[in-house]
Amino acid sequence: MTVPKTAADAVKTLRTARKEPAEGTDSPALQMGELSELLGYSLKRAQLKIFEDFLRCVAPLQLTPAQFSVLLLLDKNPGRNQTEIANTLGILRPNFVAMLDGLESRDLCARIRSTNDRRSHILVLTDKGRAVLARAKKLVAAKHEARLNELLGPANRAALLGMLGKIAEEF
Amino acid sequence: MTVPKTAADAVKTLRTARKEPAEGTDSPALQMGELSELLGYSLKRAQLKIFEDFLRCVAPLQLTPAQFSVLLLLDKNPGRNQTEIANTLGILRPNFVAMLDGLESRDLCARIRSTNDRRSHILVLTDKGRAVLARAKKLVAAKHEARLNELLGPANRAALLGMLGKIAEEF
Repeated sequence: MTVPKTAADAVKTLRTARKEPAEGTDSPALQMGELSELLGYSLKRAQLKIFEDFLRCVAPLQLTPAQFSVLLLLDKNPGRNQTEIANTLGILRPNFVAMLDGLESRDLCARIRSTNDRRSHILVLTDKGRAVLARAKKLVAAKHEARLNELLGPANRAALLGMLGKIAEEF
Repeated sequence: MTVPKTAADAVKTLRTARKEPAEGTDSPALQMGELSELLGYSLKRAQLKIFEDFLRCVAPLQLTPAQFSVLLLLDKNPGRNQTEIANTLGILRPNFVAMLDGLESRDLCARIRSTNDRRSHILVLTDKGRAVLARAKKLVAAKHEARLNELLGPANRAALLGMLGKIAEEF
Protein backbone atom coordinates (compact mmCIF):
# COMPACT_ATOMS: atom_id res chain seq x y z
CA MET A 1 0.00 0.00 0.00
CA THR A 2 1.48 3.37 -0.94
CA VAL A 3 1.28 5.87 1.87
CA PRO A 4 1.46 9.63 1.26
CA LYS A 5 3.93 11.02 3.81
CA THR A 6 1.63 13.74 5.12
CA ALA A 7 -2.04 14.59 5.00
CA ALA A 8 -1.15 17.66 2.90
CA ASP A 9 0.58 15.44 0.28
CA ALA A 10 -2.42 13.16 0.24
CA VAL A 11 -4.89 16.00 -0.34
CA LYS A 12 -2.69 17.40 -3.12
CA THR A 13 -2.43 14.01 -4.84
CA LEU A 14 -6.17 13.41 -4.71
CA ARG A 15 -7.06 16.92 -5.90
CA THR A 16 -4.74 16.64 -8.86
CA ALA A 17 -5.92 13.14 -9.66
CA ARG A 18 -9.52 14.24 -9.88
CA LYS A 19 -8.83 17.46 -11.78
CA GLU A 20 -11.64 18.27 -14.17
CA PRO A 21 -10.89 18.91 -17.84
CA ALA A 22 -9.75 22.49 -18.50
CA GLU A 23 -12.55 24.95 -19.13
CA GLY A 24 -13.19 25.66 -22.74
CA THR A 25 -12.77 22.02 -23.78
CA ASP A 26 -16.27 20.86 -24.50
CA SER A 27 -15.46 17.35 -25.71
CA PRO A 28 -18.15 14.81 -24.90
CA ALA A 29 -17.51 12.42 -22.00
CA LEU A 30 -15.64 9.25 -22.85
CA GLN A 31 -17.37 5.89 -23.34
CA MET A 32 -16.45 3.79 -20.31
CA GLY A 33 -17.39 0.46 -21.95
CA GLU A 34 -16.54 -2.61 -19.86
CA LEU A 35 -14.78 -0.45 -17.25
CA SER A 36 -18.07 0.45 -15.58
CA GLU A 37 -18.71 -3.28 -15.01
CA LEU A 38 -15.29 -4.01 -13.51
CA LEU A 39 -15.49 -4.39 -9.75
CA GLY A 40 -11.80 -3.55 -9.22
CA TYR A 41 -12.16 -0.26 -11.09
CA SER A 42 -15.32 0.71 -9.18
CA LEU A 43 -13.69 -0.19 -5.88
CA LYS A 44 -10.69 1.99 -6.63
CA ARG A 45 -12.83 5.00 -7.61
CA ALA A 46 -15.06 4.68 -4.53
CA GLN A 47 -12.03 4.24 -2.28
CA LEU A 48 -10.35 7.40 -3.64
CA LYS A 49 -13.56 9.36 -3.07
CA ILE A 50 -13.86 8.11 0.50
CA PHE A 51 -10.20 8.84 1.29
CA GLU A 52 -10.60 12.36 -0.10
CA ASP A 53 -13.60 13.00 2.15
CA PHE A 54 -11.76 11.51 5.13
CA LEU A 55 -8.85 13.92 4.59
CA ARG A 56 -11.25 16.85 4.41
CA CYS A 57 -13.07 15.79 7.59
CA VAL A 58 -9.94 15.37 9.71
CA ALA A 59 -8.05 18.27 8.08
CA PRO A 60 -7.75 20.16 11.41
CA LEU A 61 -5.71 17.22 12.73
CA GLN A 62 -3.65 16.57 9.56
CA LEU A 63 -4.08 12.79 9.60
CA THR A 64 -4.18 10.48 6.57
CA PRO A 65 -6.44 7.40 6.64
CA ALA A 66 -3.32 5.22 7.06
CA GLN A 67 -2.03 7.31 9.98
CA PHE A 68 -5.47 7.13 11.60
CA SER A 69 -5.43 3.32 11.22
CA VAL A 70 -2.05 3.11 12.90
CA LEU A 71 -3.16 5.26 15.86
CA LEU A 72 -6.35 3.18 16.24
CA LEU A 73 -4.39 -0.06 16.17
CA LEU A 74 -1.76 1.16 18.66
CA ASP A 75 -4.51 2.26 21.02
CA LYS A 76 -6.19 -1.17 20.90
CA ASN A 77 -2.92 -3.14 20.98
CA PRO A 78 -0.36 -1.47 23.23
CA GLY A 79 3.06 -3.11 23.36
CA ARG A 80 2.95 -4.78 19.93
CA ASN A 81 5.98 -4.41 17.71
CA GLN A 82 6.50 -2.53 14.48
CA THR A 83 6.36 -5.64 12.28
CA GLU A 84 3.04 -6.81 13.74
CA ILE A 85 1.36 -3.44 13.19
CA ALA A 86 2.75 -3.03 9.64
CA ASN A 87 1.77 -6.59 8.63
CA THR A 88 -1.72 -6.26 10.05
CA LEU A 89 -2.31 -3.08 8.05
CA GLY A 90 -0.58 -4.44 4.92
CA ILE A 91 1.82 -1.48 4.83
CA LEU A 92 5.27 -2.03 3.31
CA ARG A 93 8.11 -1.80 5.82
CA PRO A 94 9.92 1.24 4.34
CA ASN A 95 6.65 3.14 4.03
CA PHE A 96 5.73 2.19 7.58
CA VAL A 97 9.08 3.35 8.96
CA ALA A 98 8.64 6.71 7.18
CA MET A 99 5.11 7.01 8.56
CA LEU A 100 6.28 6.26 12.12
CA ASP A 101 9.05 8.84 11.76
CA GLY A 102 6.36 11.39 10.92
CA LEU A 103 4.06 10.39 13.79
CA GLU A 104 6.98 10.30 16.26
CA SER A 105 8.23 13.75 15.18
CA ARG A 106 4.74 15.08 15.97
CA ASP A 107 4.90 13.33 19.37
CA LEU A 108 1.87 11.13 18.58
CA CYS A 109 3.60 7.79 19.18
CA ALA A 110 6.89 6.43 20.48
CA ARG A 111 9.15 3.48 19.63
CA ILE A 112 10.55 1.69 22.67
CA ARG A 113 13.20 -1.04 22.46
CA SER A 114 11.61 -4.35 23.46
CA THR A 115 12.93 -5.86 26.68
CA ASN A 116 12.22 -9.41 25.37
CA ASP A 117 13.87 -8.95 21.98
CA ARG A 118 16.43 -6.15 21.85
CA ARG A 119 16.25 -6.13 18.03
CA SER A 120 12.59 -5.14 17.91
CA HIS A 121 10.70 -1.99 18.85
CA ILE A 122 7.35 -1.91 20.53
CA LEU A 123 5.02 0.96 19.70
CA VAL A 124 2.96 3.03 22.08
CA LEU A 125 0.70 6.05 21.78
CA THR A 126 1.81 9.14 23.66
CA ASP A 127 -0.69 11.17 25.70
CA LYS A 128 -0.86 13.61 22.80
CA GLY A 129 -1.42 10.71 20.39
CA ARG A 130 -4.32 9.49 22.50
CA ALA A 131 -5.85 12.97 22.59
CA VAL A 132 -5.48 13.45 18.81
CA LEU A 133 -6.97 10.00 18.18
CA ALA A 134 -9.98 10.82 20.40
CA ARG A 135 -10.59 14.05 18.44
CA ALA A 136 -10.10 12.26 15.10
CA LYS A 137 -12.60 9.54 16.06
CA LYS A 138 -15.19 12.20 16.85
CA LEU A 139 -14.63 14.02 13.54
CA VAL A 140 -14.73 10.76 11.56
CA ALA A 141 -17.95 9.63 13.25
CA ALA A 142 -19.72 13.00 13.16
CA LYS A 143 -18.75 14.05 9.64
CA HIS A 144 -17.32 11.28 7.49
CA GLU A 145 -19.20 8.17 8.63
CA ALA A 146 -22.41 10.10 9.26
CA ARG A 147 -22.47 11.36 5.65
CA LEU A 148 -21.74 7.87 4.31
CA ASN A 149 -24.56 6.49 6.42
CA GLU A 150 -26.88 9.15 5.06
CA LEU A 151 -25.87 8.39 1.46
CA LEU A 152 -26.21 4.61 1.68
CA GLY A 153 -28.62 4.03 4.55
CA PRO A 154 -27.61 1.83 7.50
CA ALA A 155 -28.80 -1.47 5.96
CA ASN A 156 -26.91 -0.92 2.68
CA ARG A 157 -23.86 0.26 4.55
CA ALA A 158 -23.85 -2.96 6.59
CA ALA A 159 -24.34 -5.06 3.44
CA LEU A 160 -21.47 -3.23 1.74
CA LEU A 161 -19.14 -3.83 4.71
CA GLY A 162 -20.12 -7.49 4.69
CA MET A 163 -19.33 -7.97 1.01
CA LEU A 164 -16.03 -6.09 1.26
CA GLY A 165 -15.05 -8.25 4.24
CA LYS A 166 -15.93 -11.38 2.28
CA ILE A 167 -13.71 -10.27 -0.61
CA ALA A 168 -10.81 -9.41 1.73
CA GLU A 169 -11.09 -12.71 3.61
CA GLU A 170 -12.17 -15.27 1.01
CA PHE A 171 -11.28 -14.06 -2.48
CA MET B 1 -3.68 7.28 -8.18
CA THR B 2 -0.26 5.66 -7.83
CA VAL B 3 0.53 3.37 -10.71
CA PRO B 4 3.20 0.64 -10.49
CA LYS B 5 5.31 0.91 -13.65
CA THR B 6 5.04 -2.75 -14.62
CA ALA B 7 2.89 -5.72 -13.75
CA ALA B 8 5.95 -7.37 -12.16
CA ASP B 9 6.43 -4.36 -9.83
CA ALA B 10 2.78 -4.49 -8.91
CA VAL B 11 2.87 -8.20 -8.04
CA LYS B 12 6.00 -7.68 -5.95
CA THR B 13 4.44 -4.76 -4.05
CA LEU B 14 1.26 -6.67 -3.30
CA ARG B 15 3.08 -9.84 -2.26
CA THR B 16 5.29 -7.92 0.13
CA ALA B 17 2.38 -5.90 1.45
CA ARG B 18 0.45 -9.04 2.38
CA LYS B 19 3.40 -10.88 3.86
CA GLU B 20 2.36 -13.08 6.75
CA PRO B 21 4.17 -12.77 10.09
CA ALA B 22 7.42 -14.76 10.16
CA GLU B 23 7.03 -18.39 11.15
CA GLY B 24 7.80 -19.12 14.77
CA THR B 25 6.10 -15.94 15.97
CA ASP B 26 2.93 -17.16 17.60
CA SER B 27 1.58 -13.83 18.85
CA PRO B 28 -2.20 -13.63 18.87
CA ALA B 29 -3.89 -11.61 16.11
CA LEU B 30 -4.32 -7.92 16.81
CA GLN B 31 -7.60 -6.38 17.94
CA MET B 32 -8.93 -4.42 14.98
CA GLY B 33 -11.36 -2.33 17.06
CA GLU B 34 -13.13 0.43 15.10
CA LEU B 35 -11.05 -0.33 11.98
CA SER B 36 -13.31 -3.22 11.02
CA GLU B 37 -16.26 -0.81 10.93
CA LEU B 38 -14.53 1.82 8.76
CA LEU B 39 -15.75 1.68 5.18
CA GLY B 40 -12.59 3.30 3.76
CA TYR B 41 -10.37 0.68 5.39
CA SER B 42 -12.54 -2.21 4.18
CA LEU B 43 -12.64 -0.77 0.65
CA LYS B 44 -8.86 -0.49 0.55
CA ARG B 45 -8.33 -4.09 1.74
CA ALA B 46 -10.89 -5.49 -0.72
CA GLN B 47 -9.42 -3.43 -3.56
CA LEU B 48 -5.88 -4.70 -2.86
CA LYS B 49 -7.16 -8.29 -2.84
CA ILE B 50 -8.96 -7.81 -6.16
CA PHE B 51 -5.97 -6.13 -7.81
CA GLU B 52 -3.74 -8.98 -6.65
CA ASP B 53 -6.07 -11.55 -8.21
CA PHE B 54 -6.30 -9.47 -11.39
CA LEU B 55 -2.50 -9.45 -11.73
CA ARG B 56 -2.40 -13.21 -11.22
CA CYS B 57 -5.12 -13.81 -13.83
CA VAL B 58 -3.52 -11.70 -16.56
CA ALA B 59 0.06 -12.60 -15.62
CA PRO B 60 0.74 -14.13 -19.09
CA LEU B 61 0.10 -10.68 -20.59
CA GLN B 62 1.92 -8.63 -17.93
CA LEU B 63 -0.78 -5.98 -17.55
CA THR B 64 -1.63 -4.01 -14.42
CA PRO B 65 -5.26 -3.07 -13.71
CA ALA B 66 -4.43 0.56 -14.64
CA GLN B 67 -2.80 -0.48 -17.95
CA PHE B 68 -5.83 -2.65 -18.74
CA SER B 69 -8.12 0.34 -18.06
CA VAL B 70 -6.11 2.50 -20.45
CA LEU B 71 -6.25 -0.10 -23.24
CA LEU B 72 -10.01 -0.54 -22.73
CA LEU B 73 -10.59 3.20 -22.85
CA LEU B 74 -8.42 3.71 -25.95
CA ASP B 75 -10.30 0.94 -27.71
CA LYS B 76 -13.69 2.53 -26.94
CA ASN B 77 -12.51 6.10 -27.60
CA PRO B 78 -10.05 6.24 -30.49
CA GLY B 79 -8.58 9.66 -31.24
CA ARG B 80 -8.95 11.16 -27.75
CA ASN B 81 -5.98 12.95 -26.30
CA GLN B 82 -3.67 12.11 -23.44
CA THR B 83 -5.27 14.60 -21.02
CA GLU B 84 -8.79 13.29 -21.62
CA ILE B 85 -7.79 9.68 -20.96
CA ALA B 86 -5.70 10.54 -17.87
CA ASN B 87 -8.45 12.74 -16.38
CA THR B 88 -11.16 10.17 -17.01
CA LEU B 89 -9.15 7.51 -15.18
CA GLY B 90 -8.01 9.89 -12.43
CA ILE B 91 -4.35 9.14 -13.11
CA LEU B 92 -1.79 11.87 -12.36
CA ARG B 93 -0.10 13.29 -15.46
CA PRO B 94 3.51 12.19 -14.65
CA ASN B 95 2.32 8.68 -13.78
CA PHE B 96 0.26 8.55 -16.94
CA VAL B 97 3.17 9.65 -19.13
CA ALA B 98 5.36 6.94 -17.57
CA MET B 99 2.62 4.38 -18.16
CA LEU B 100 2.24 5.39 -21.80
CA ASP B 101 6.01 5.16 -22.29
CA GLY B 102 5.80 1.57 -21.07
CA LEU B 103 2.82 0.67 -23.27
CA GLU B 104 4.37 2.36 -26.30
CA SER B 105 7.72 0.59 -25.82
CA ARG B 106 5.79 -2.71 -25.92
CA ASP B 107 4.06 -1.54 -29.09
CA LEU B 108 0.59 -1.68 -27.49
CA CYS B 109 -0.37 1.93 -28.20
CA ALA B 110 0.94 4.95 -30.07
CA ARG B 111 0.95 8.72 -29.51
CA ILE B 112 0.17 10.74 -32.63
CA ARG B 113 0.49 14.51 -32.79
CA SER B 114 -3.01 15.98 -33.17
CA THR B 115 -3.68 17.72 -36.48
CA ASN B 116 -6.16 20.11 -34.76
CA ASP B 117 -3.91 21.08 -31.90
CA ARG B 118 -0.20 20.55 -32.52
CA ARG B 119 0.51 20.74 -28.77
CA SER B 120 -1.56 17.69 -27.93
CA HIS B 121 -1.20 13.98 -28.67
CA ILE B 122 -4.00 11.66 -29.56
CA LEU B 123 -3.73 8.07 -28.48
CA VAL B 124 -4.50 4.97 -30.49
CA LEU B 125 -4.21 1.24 -29.92
CA THR B 126 -1.85 -0.61 -32.24
CA ASP B 127 -2.90 -3.93 -33.81
CA LYS B 128 -0.81 -5.67 -31.17
CA GLY B 129 -2.53 -3.57 -28.48
CA ARG B 130 -5.93 -4.64 -29.77
CA ALA B 131 -4.89 -8.30 -29.78
CA VAL B 132 -3.47 -8.14 -26.24
CA LEU B 133 -6.61 -6.36 -25.02
CA ALA B 134 -8.82 -9.06 -26.55
CA ARG B 135 -6.80 -11.78 -24.78
CA ALA B 136 -6.82 -9.83 -21.51
CA LYS B 137 -10.60 -9.38 -21.65
CA LYS B 138 -11.03 -13.13 -22.05
CA LEU B 139 -8.71 -13.91 -19.11
CA VAL B 140 -10.42 -11.30 -16.90
CA ALA B 141 -13.89 -12.60 -17.74
CA ALA B 142 -13.07 -16.31 -17.51
CA LYS B 143 -10.88 -16.22 -14.39
CA HIS B 144 -11.10 -13.00 -12.41
CA GLU B 145 -14.72 -11.89 -12.85
CA ALA B 146 -16.04 -15.45 -12.88
CA ARG B 147 -14.47 -16.14 -9.47
CA LEU B 148 -15.83 -12.89 -8.06
CA ASN B 149 -19.27 -13.78 -9.35
CA GLU B 150 -19.01 -17.18 -7.73
CA LEU B 151 -17.93 -15.66 -4.40
CA LEU B 152 -20.62 -12.98 -4.22
CA GLY B 153 -23.42 -14.26 -6.41
CA PRO B 154 -24.72 -12.16 -9.34
CA ALA B 155 -27.32 -10.24 -7.30
CA ASN B 156 -24.85 -9.21 -4.60
CA ARG B 157 -22.25 -8.36 -7.21
CA ALA B 158 -24.72 -6.03 -8.91
CA ALA B 159 -25.71 -4.47 -5.57
CA LEU B 160 -22.05 -3.93 -4.72
CA LEU B 161 -21.35 -2.25 -8.08
CA GLY B 162 -24.39 -0.02 -7.56
CA MET B 163 -23.28 1.13 -4.11
CA LEU B 164 -19.70 1.75 -5.25
CA GLY B 165 -21.00 3.80 -8.18
CA LYS B 166 -23.19 5.81 -5.83
CA ILE B 167 -20.20 6.58 -3.61
CA ALA B 168 -18.01 7.55 -6.60
CA GLU B 169 -20.72 9.79 -8.09
CA GLU B 170 -22.54 11.27 -5.13
CA PHE B 171 -20.35 11.20 -2.03
